[in-house]
Amino acid sequence: MSATTAGALRVPLDELAGRIRAALRGLGLAEAHVQAMARVIAAGQRDACQSHGIYRVLTCARTVRAGKVDLHAEPVVEADGSAVVRVDARHAFSPLAFERGLPMLAEVTRRHGVGALAIRHCFHFSALWPEIEMITAHGLAALAMTPSHAWVAPAGGHKPVFGTNPIAFGWPRPGPTPLVFDFATSAIARGDLELHRRTGTPLPPDCGVDAAGHPSTDPVAVASGAMRAFGGHKGSALAMMVELMAGALIGDWTSRESLDFDAGAGAAPCHGELILAFDPVRLGGADSVDGQRRAEDMFDAITAQGARLPSQRRFEARERSLREGVTVPAGLYREMLAMAGGVA
Amino acid sequence: MSATTAGALRVPLDELAGRIRAALRGLGLAEAHVQAMARVIAAGQRDACQSHGIYRVLTCARTVRAGKVDLHAEPVVEADGSAVVRVDARHAFSPLAFERGLPMLAEVTRRHGVGALAIRHCFHFSALWPEIEMITAHGLAALAMTPSHAWVAPAGGHKPVFGTNPIAFGWPRPGPTPLVFDFATSAIARGDLELHRRTGTPLPPDCGVDAAGHPSTDPVAVASGAMRAFGGHKGSALAMMVELMAGALIGDWTSRESLDFDAGAGAAPCHGELILAFDPVRLGGADSVDGQRRAEDMFDAITAQGARLPSQRRFEARERSLREGVTVPAGLYREMLAMAGGVA
Repeated sequence: MSATTAGALRVPLDELAGRIRAALRGLGLAEAHVQAMARVIAAGQRDACQSHGIYRVLTCARTVRAGKVDLHAEPVVEADGSAVVRVDARHAFSPLAFERGLPMLAEVTRRHGVGALAIRHCFHFSALWPEIEMITAHGLAALAMTPSHAWVAPAGGHKPVFGTNPIAFGWPRPGPTPLVFDFATSAIARGDLELHRRTGTPLPPDCGVDAAGHPSTDPVAVASGAMRAFGGHKGSALAMMVELMAGALIGDWTSRESLDFDAGAGAAPCHGELILAFDPVRLGGADSVDGQRRAEDMFDAITAQGARLPSQRRFEARERSLREGVTVPAGLYREMLAMAGGVA
Repeated sequence: MSATTAGALRVPLDELAGRIRAALRGLGLAEAHVQAMARVIAAGQRDACQSHGIYRVLTCARTVRAGKVDLHAEPVVEADGSAVVRVDARHAFSPLAFERGLPMLAEVTRRHGVGALAIRHCFHFSALWPEIEMITAHGLAALAMTPSHAWVAPAGGHKPVFGTNPIAFGWPRPGPTPLVFDFATSAIARGDLELHRRTGTPLPPDCGVDAAGHPSTDPVAVASGAMRAFGGHKGSALAMMVELMAGALIGDWTSRESLDFDAGAGAAPCHGELILAFDPVRLGGADSVDGQRRAEDMFDAITAQGARLPSQRRFEARERSLREGVTVPAGLYREMLAMAGGVA
């Protein structure tokens, strides 16, 4: 560990991962959960995704304290020879459920050309891109989505119905990193709203409405009113699709049910997740090599005009972290180290 | 036929469909293509989608005149027992290819839980919602996407790479109409840009840039520069996903290749389409009935606050058309009637 700019430390990735595991063990989690959760949290911090890095250890601690998450449940994987793999997370955190379902998802996708992994009954705190990258590593394309807590109003309305409902997509590329995007269908992330609320700074315009339905940039008013979807009625439609595909379709909760279940505890949302995978070899047939070349030509046409590919900044942060150590906020890091002693 | 407000006629749906078929026959199309194309065009006009109604007969005529579309090719359906159905449209228009692939898509989706229909080498002029509704009629959910011509710059860039790349989704509901949305990932539809160009009216802000990359509301400048995606970098990421999923993944062209192939003819774009279908019974298992109920509860929470569901206006127009006849612009209608005599 070494000090860097004011309030930040630089920690080798292995050391950081070990500290994260120790903190999670302090919460009383079973070792399989500790390992899977630490992988996605360390990856988030490594890639400078502050909202999905070691900050999430605190989210997990709050969720554990709320008392509804199962700390030991082993996920149950069901596969019936179809293109669908169902995993019941049994009210534990989601990363282990994903890891347990992944090998079977890759297998059915290769066999059938398309595969679906339906995870149910999980507490979800992670970004979706670590999962997407684990699928593209198999040479498959992937599309994932999950509800959250109902904080977002539908276009034309002013009462929360949808979650921040992220959608993530990945495309396998030659070289070390795939093409990946992962974004909330809300105009801003919930974490950003919280940050504005804590610091008392106004939100950007068009992010939300107050409880009376009037547009507002006051984070306190929006938190008790409703957030908006990005991109007007189109983003709202996508947020609805996430509720239907990763909720109703797989027989799990919508964001409204998840928020009701939370009952003010401020825990991670509890619901399902849908992950689709696609085999370019099966879908493209004899033209799949051309397809890979076409994708690279398009990426070149984007970067040649000075535009960035999604996740490009994240991959640059990753390279830096692997070379120089991971930058972590000092206060948050100390808070996490203290957790290794056991949950308060 | 009866006159209605200035410049509009009201025509019974059956009569309108017959007139559309006659005009398409005048283009020299094989009868199977005439039937499939007339179904989607009549449906568009019935639902008051002016840009995808009888106006599209003129698009088809222009495409025929450009000389690259095959007027007679019978689509070739390939199914190998996997979840993927591939249809080679053989450079004919797309609606027949979709109709020929649909029964097999429904079958593999029921068998495997998830299915993919990859249509390749088609000239594409239709909205996606008619296809989506044909899938939801089977009790399946559906997600469809297709590239177009490269008119849209990536976020952070100013040169066209993506098409207007529509995404459409459908969810089966009890009652006569499903939940459906269908939108371009560009900030405005290409047809709207053309309309602004013809009438010399400025575009809304944030729809495009001129050839030097400066934001512009001048439709002529944007047509020779680039359109923008909706919703900033998120919409841009989705537009890219469409190129990858409905282009590179299925081994067919991207929007850039389609525009190159068009070589200024102004014909309908030529590329592929990807349609995914999902069986709620297979994905939701014992909870699929609960899933249907959850979806309806969410729709109620949206409409109860005065917000509209996607396609609600379209379904209202449909009801009106079935009751009172379809409203059609008189000038366009006469132009179409004249086509029945043969292509000029």
